[in-house]
Amino acid sequence: MKKDIHRLMEERKIDVAIVEGPDGMDSTNPAFAYMTGGQHLVGSVIIKRGEKPIVLFRSMERDAAAATGHEAINMDRWPTHEIVQKFPNPLDARVELYKRIIGDLKLKGRIAFYGTGSIGSHFAFLRGLQPGLNGSEIIGEYDRDIFQVARETKDPDEIARLEKHGKETCAVIGEAVEFIRSHKVKSETLVTKDGTPLTIGKAKEFIRLESARRGLVMGEDFIFALGRDGATGHSVGNPDDPIQLGKSIVFDFFPRDANGYFHDVTRTFCFGHAPKEIEKIYHQVMDCFQTVVKQFKVGETTQKYQHMTCDIFEKHGHTTQRSDPKSQSGYFHSLGHGLGLEVHEQPYFSTFGPPRSTLQPGMVFTVEPGLYYPEKGYGVRIEDTYYCDAKGQFHSITPFPQDLVIPMKG
Amino acid sequence: MKKDIHRLMEERKIDVAIVEGPDGMDSTNPAFAYMTGGQHLVGSVIIKRGEKPIVLFRSMERDAAAATGHEAINMDRWPTHEIVQKFPNPLDARVELYKRIIGDLKLKGRIAFYGTGSIGSHFAFLRGLQPGLNGSEIIGEYDRDIFQVARETKDPDEIARLEKHGKETCAVIGEAVEFIRSHKVKSETLVTKDGTPLTIGKAKEFIRLESARRGLVMGEDFIFALGRDGATGHSVGNPDDPIQLGKSIVFDFFPRDANGYFHDVTRTFCFGHAPKEIEKIYHQVMDCFQTVVKQFKVGETTQKYQHMTCDIFEKHGHTTQRSDPKSQSGYFHSLGHGLGLEVHEQPYFSTFGPPRSTLQPGMVFTVEPGLYYPEKGYGVRIEDTYYCDAKGQFHSITPFPQDLVIPMKG
Repeated sequence: MKKDIHRLMEERKIDVAIVEGPDGMDSTNPAFAYMTGGQHLVGSVIIKRGEKPIVLFRSMERDAAAATGHEAINMDRWPTHEIVQKFPNPLDARVELYKRIIGDLKLKGRIAFYGTGSIGSHFAFLRGLQPGLNGSEIIGEYDRDIFQVARETKDPDEIARLEKHGKETCAVIGEAVEFIRSHKVKSETLVTKDGTPLTIGKAKEFIRLESARRGLVMGEDFIFALGRDGATGHSVGNPDDPIQLGKSIVFDFFPRDANGYFHDVTRTFCFGHAPKEIEKIYHQVMDCFQTVVKQFKVGETTQKYQHMTCDIFEKHGHTTQRSDPKSQSGYFHSLGHGLGLEVHEQPYFSTFGPPRSTLQPGMVFTVEPGLYYPEKGYGVRIEDTYYCDAKGQFHSITPFPQDLVIPMKG
Repeated sequence: MKKDIHRLMEERKIDVAIVEGPDGMDSTNPAFAYMTGGQHLVGSVIIKRGEKPIVLFRSMERDAAAATGHEAINMDRWPTHEIVQKFPNPLDARVELYKRIIGDLKLKGRIAFYGTGSIGSHFAFLRGLQPGLNGSEIIGEYDRDIFQVARETKDPDEIARLEKHGKETCAVIGEAVEFIRSHKVKSETLVTKDGTPLTIGKAKEFIRLESARRGLVMGEDFIFALGRDGATGHSVGNPDDPIQLGKSIVFDFFPRDANGYFHDVTRTFCFGHAPKEIEKIYHQVMDCFQTVVKQFKVGETTQKYQHMTCDIFEKHGHTTQRSDPKSQSGYFHSLGHGLGLEVHEQPYFSTFGPPRSTLQPGMVFTVEPGLYYPEKGYGVRIEDTYYCDAKGQFHSITPFPQDLVIPMKG
């Protein structure tokens, strides 16, 4: 939670945290969004350990800067126009500007940079900045940085937001299911009013529109994939595929809300009826899902549940990521991932390496066991978003049935 | 254009370009999208100078990797699971993995990194990677990197895509204008069928929905801002403001298409009628717009046109960024910016510092003079997207009238 940031800075001996908010990154700059409340601006957030954050902003975004609630300093305090005349090389000019900011704001000690931006240009910039800072040190945290760890547990406001967003997300799924099952069927293929097949593309169009109507943002394409496409993991689906009775569809949906928070849910559907072999693996996936979520306990490593999932699937004779890390069938991913301002964030449920996270109150993460057989033309994944409340109880915040078979209307 | 990449590598003595495609960045990783054709995958694109690109991918995204058309190498060629067991520190594990990739693919010399990602973790990673590379050097390009310069001029396919997308964007604006002007008016305020005021929020909702219907993506909020909010530059507008006759609205709209290419257009509207003072500055902005676009000529610096704009506005008595870089009224930004896979990219039209770009065939950029008087409660900006064809002729690809006053229907 946000209140942990100063403690984490203390533990890691970080004196100053600078979160960069470059142009064009808004929705993919979670640390910056976290510190600005999702306001759209180009600038930086500077935190001296133990002090209140400062936002550096440009005049055109003064309203957004004010809305962050932090102390806001207009970048025009530093004469960029003079600096770029004096330092014709843009890198030199940027280094000079930051030296002045660091000097004027008395930033000293171990200065860590965060935020999202161009990898190469920031590498050049930070390397160029280091020599001129007598005594201070520029650092980058590689893994589980202070913002990632703070964001790993959500405060009550964030939980309320995520719960509300889960309901909206499920409402879209409900509308999509009703839309599809209302179609007529002609020799096992769903057909629209004009007699043409209902395709994956048309269903996705409906979902996109319904999302927009409810203010949900789909920055990236979502997965709505038929048969074999649902069995590779991340194929988004072929728009031209006609939807047919008894064929499995993997619908993995992860919209953002207006504040930048994600929900993540997957359902696997067969319209009308399901083939026996798909039903069989669906029941194995559901069984795994229910067994695992019952065992969630504060203090246990996330990795324990990934191994539990592998145990269950291996017992049924499936290959897992653990038994064959190269396998492209069976169970080949991890049980889940945290989500919030990123669709994938801490905690992770990794198979290999040392355990990195333990379950804690305030955590929000997905539970998504799946089994995939591309060569047989089907995959099944069931995913809910879970959260752990202050008492250590785990709840799904994805209020939508997990049924495989969706009966057609009439 | 893409064909320039190897020449740029040669000129800059870059032996290998590695474009990183980390998780969660798709729509904000232009260099990676440029090299993968917008396919959604987590991985890297590696270009040895003079050779064809290679894509590193993970199994779950093998379809997307194949669709890039490049040679594709599955990351499971390297035993990540063994590496993370042997190197429990995640940074050490990542460095080890890349050392193996660099060794196996025989990457040597000056190795430059590109792409978008976490600033801090990539700084730590690239710094950690350097020592183990006997003889090779890790570099980052700060400014106008090879991909930015290649992307600064568009090839005919990209132009066709951008022109089509301009038409779709303008179609949404047309629908929005028709929607608004069809409302009834009650004491100067537009009202909906249920008698409540038509607000900025309701108009934006209509625009979002119409965008989704046409497959346009609004990753970020757009500007639809009334009166004073339209005069700060980047305020997105207050959703509760009722739309009133004779009040100016700045509508700055920059959707992406399905391939990640942007359009960018601004119109300033007064519904019903416009006050004399807004009409006056509108005509000054239009006059400036038309004067400047007539002068565009291949080989001239973009900066020349920014100065031309300042000349025109200063002659009318307005403060400009050039006459007072701190001013928050008058003309306080630059004339335009390139656009393509980013909404702001090369070329820029900067006021200060040495000129960086000259106009060239294939360039696509905005032309957006504006005048702003927040203390008087209005701002006017008019923006079209322009392109320069192979013959050096400049054309608007924003087919929508630039009128200020939109008469109400009936």
